[in-house]
Amino acid sequence: MVHARLFTMDGPGVGFIPDGAVAISGSRIAAVGRTADMRRDYDAAEIVDCRGDIVLPGLIDAHMHTGIALLRGIAQDMDHWMQLGIWPFRRHLTSEMAVAGSLVNIIEAMQAGTTTFGDYNSNMKQLLPHYQRLGARARVAEMIHSLPPQQGALQPGQLYPLDDTVGSALLEKNIQLYERWQGADDGRFSVLFGPQGPDLLGPELLQDVYAAARQRQAMVHMHVAQGDREILQMQLRYGKRSIAYLDSHGLLGPELLAVHLTEANTNEVKLLAKRGVSLVYCPGSIGIIDGLVPPVTEFLGYGGKAALGSDQLPGNNCSNMWNEMKLAALFNKIKHSDPKVLPAWKVLRMATVDGAAALGLGGEVGSLVPGKYADIIRVDAQATALSPILDESLRNIVPNLVYSLRGHEVHWMMIHGSVVMAERRLLHVDAAAAVAAAQKKAEEMASKAHQEGDLDASPLKRWTEQGFL
Amino acid sequence: MVHARLFTMDGPGVGFIPDGAVAISGSRIAAVGRTADMRRDYDAAEIVDCRGDIVLPGLIDAHMHTGIALLRGIAQDMDHWMQLGIWPFRRHLTSEMAVAGSLVNIIEAMQAGTTTFGDYNSNMKQLLPHYQRLGARARVAEMIHSLPPQQGALQPGQLYPLDDTVGSALLEKNIQLYERWQGADDGRFSVLFGPQGPDLLGPELLQDVYAAARQRQAMVHMHVAQGDREILQMQLRYGKRSIAYLDSHGLLGPELLAVHLTEANTNEVKLLAKRGVSLVYCPGSIGIIDGLVPPVTEFLGYGGKAALGSDQLPGNNCSNMWNEMKLAALFNKIKHSDPKVLPAWKVLRMATVDGAAALGLGGEVGSLVPGKYADIIRVDAQATALSPILDESLRNIVPNLVYSLRGHEVHWMMIHGSVVMAERRLLHVDAAAAVAAAQKKAEEMASKAHQEGDLDASPLKRWTEQGFL
Repeated sequence: MVHARLFTMDGPGVGFIPDGAVAISGSRIAAVGRTADMRRDYDAAEIVDCRGDIVLPGLIDAHMHTGIALLRGIAQDMDHWMQLGIWPFRRHLTSEMAVAGSLVNIIEAMQAGTTTFGDYNSNMKQLLPHYQRLGARARVAEMIHSLPPQQGALQPGQLYPLDDTVGSALLEKNIQLYERWQGADDGRFSVLFGPQGPDLLGPELLQDVYAAARQRQAMVHMHVAQGDREILQMQLRYGKRSIAYLDSHGLLGPELLAVHLTEANTNEVKLLAKRGVSLVYCPGSIGIIDGLVPPVTEFLGYGGKAALGSDQLPGNNCSNMWNEMKLAALFNKIKHSDPKVLPAWKVLRMATVDGAAALGLGGEVGSLVPGKYADIIRVDAQATALSPILDESLRNIVPNLVYSLRGHEVHWMMIHGSVVMAERRLLHVDAAAAVAAAQKKAEEMASKAHQEGDLDASPLKRWTEQGFL
Repeated sequence: MVHARLFTMDGPGVGFIPDGAVAISGSRIAAVGRTADMRRDYDAAEIVDCRGDIVLPGLIDAHMHTGIALLRGIAQDMDHWMQLGIWPFRRHLTSEMAVAGSLVNIIEAMQAGTTTFGDYNSNMKQLLPHYQRLGARARVAEMIHSLPPQQGALQPGQLYPLDDTVGSALLEKNIQLYERWQGADDGRFSVLFGPQGPDLLGPELLQDVYAAARQRQAMVHMHVAQGDREILQMQLRYGKRSIAYLDSHGLLGPELLAVHLTEANTNEVKLLAKRGVSLVYCPGSIGIIDGLVPPVTEFLGYGGKAALGSDQLPGNNCSNMWNEMKLAALFNKIKHSDPKVLPAWKVLRMATVDGAAALGLGGEVGSLVPGKYADIIRVDAQATALSPILDESLRNIVPNLVYSLRGHEVHWMMIHGSVVMAERRLLHVDAAAAVAAAQKKAEEMASKAHQEGDLDASPLKRWTEQGFL
């Protein structure tokens, strides 16, 4: 790849090379430098001319639940998102529905430049064939919880019933997922352990999950302090807030990828950073679901490592890392009433090199340096959203990527050394067919929820009837 | 237009018609209803099949400065946006540069569904040929201020020099603009009067501007309480805050379209609503420039009418009404820590029917009802960002339009009864050529700013040198 405006994301900033080139050998980057030097030093079998392109590492979406994508748009602008918004549909979501929705979600994210997916679902193994087929990188976890099946809708304020035989079986599934997928497809897949939250399984089982992870040197991907709902459960059940509880059980360490931290206070955030815990910050979903901004700047200020995540489609409602970058920067400027907070270059790092480090993939992806996997995107620098490009003396590209790009300007994508998107089309899937298949499944789901009267609890049904939706 | 999922935006909600049709005669809407009824009652010369489309009124961007589009990406993540970010470039912005940048800005906005432009610039008349050529609707104002030319960069904290002979000449330009363009092109163009802010011209001249507007039954488009910079100027010069000053001069009334209100307090907002003033809320630009959320929900709570605006590209950094809608909803949920604040349907109304009313175009555009102009957009309902579509019992389309759409899903646009975009391409302009022309002008501008050392005050130059941009 030659003649690119190249943002390698190497070093402390964005690692810009004005007329840059990347040499790729197999799945990995062999060399990076100025086009003139690289043309002199390397003899390429194939040369991709990137004139007119901005070239970046593929984007990292560190926390997603693609299995519930079919629920997009049914739980925003309301209180009790999970209980009143999600559950009426989710109880009708079959395995086939989850699979059909997930494919559209992954396609949507790839269309906007995501190459690495931190997917986290029930029955995760059923979604992995999507990633195989599409050629994407996935770092996945089974969602482990001890909620008994068929318990009916959860009610706000009610202590959940927990049955750790349920959770133990899910831990076993996570172990099997690890055995089958860790390092699979030449290292494109890796597996973490996924307790759904400290409130959703018992303390012994949570220790078992950590033991299984530690034994395999795997990370633990867990929602932590994700909302007042969780904190209430923890206080009712254990008399402690989530982070104090985890610390008292020795469960805060570099193996933990803590997601959200919506309810974490300053002391808790400081403790997490001190313990080497990583964070996934999901601005869009927490903004819509809770109207809140988690303490990500405080966490970064204490030296913590943070990635960004699009979370899930019933709250957000999209998987597009340009959206997350812009929201991350703007929400935190607003939270602190200060336009200097989380500048564009910093959130671009969170979606690339810093995100990779937080996700435990710092040695593999996130920047364009020799030895890392070749996960690369090309952005059309002639897009109206990026006009004009200023290069001389003061460069305006990074702010415009973060604050102006919409996602469809990504026209080409390579993952693991293979081209998976060209001219804005994913090469290994028929996107229209995937949308049509998901549509059919969604209608089945909605029809069941409707017939069984489950939607009566959702305010969105009332708003629909009143003509507001 | 038949077989559409039609959101007319008529009535108090979104005016949904499931298998809807719109009959158009000349520049106006003749009838709206169910396809079956309309096919029976009307005999159309041409029928557009909108199966697979979501059909909406064209979007209204009520406040823009397209003349400074060439400055995109040079003033964010910093303090003193105007003085340290904008001025070093703006003093080199020639008329030709402004014209070239504006065209790209208008194209970008139209590509995402904007049909009505509230453009507000110095030397506005030079930009109107763009709107004529592109077929868009424009409601414009000359920017009237009394800042003497060649005064050098404004310094933070310094009282501006004001010379009302400068402002008087600009008022004269605004009057000429009105005479030439008010009602032009069969009513597609209209003209307001545009004092730049209460701090930027003297009290007698501001009265003259209002008199000129009132005499012509035109509105006044003015920045009001747009930042602490303005409030400081007002207090230093008049010993009053902006809104008290305007009220004491009898300048708060239904003819005023007040932009921003960033610094307005609760009492001031209540007074504005009581006086019948309309508001343009610009979430993206104020979020980036100031890290603030103006009191829009309070204003709406007091019964005020509000539109949305994308403002300008050096702060925002894009003109895309889907972006403004999402940011408006999310910023205010966060400001009030409440996910119920500014629901999707409400911000969609702000970008359509309520925005039209605020802008004084309530009888002309903003909803699909007989008699209004035919400004209509079609959105591809098969886009991944909208998948799946739920119609039965609970409709998820509006939340997904607002929270998930990126803009390129708008594939067709009609303004004033004429098709101006089809298959995602604007019919009357070569977008690539416009981008190339703007690029050339931007390089001239940046080169001059660089050569004359003007960029030294911008932190972005330092960040570029340090490798962060």
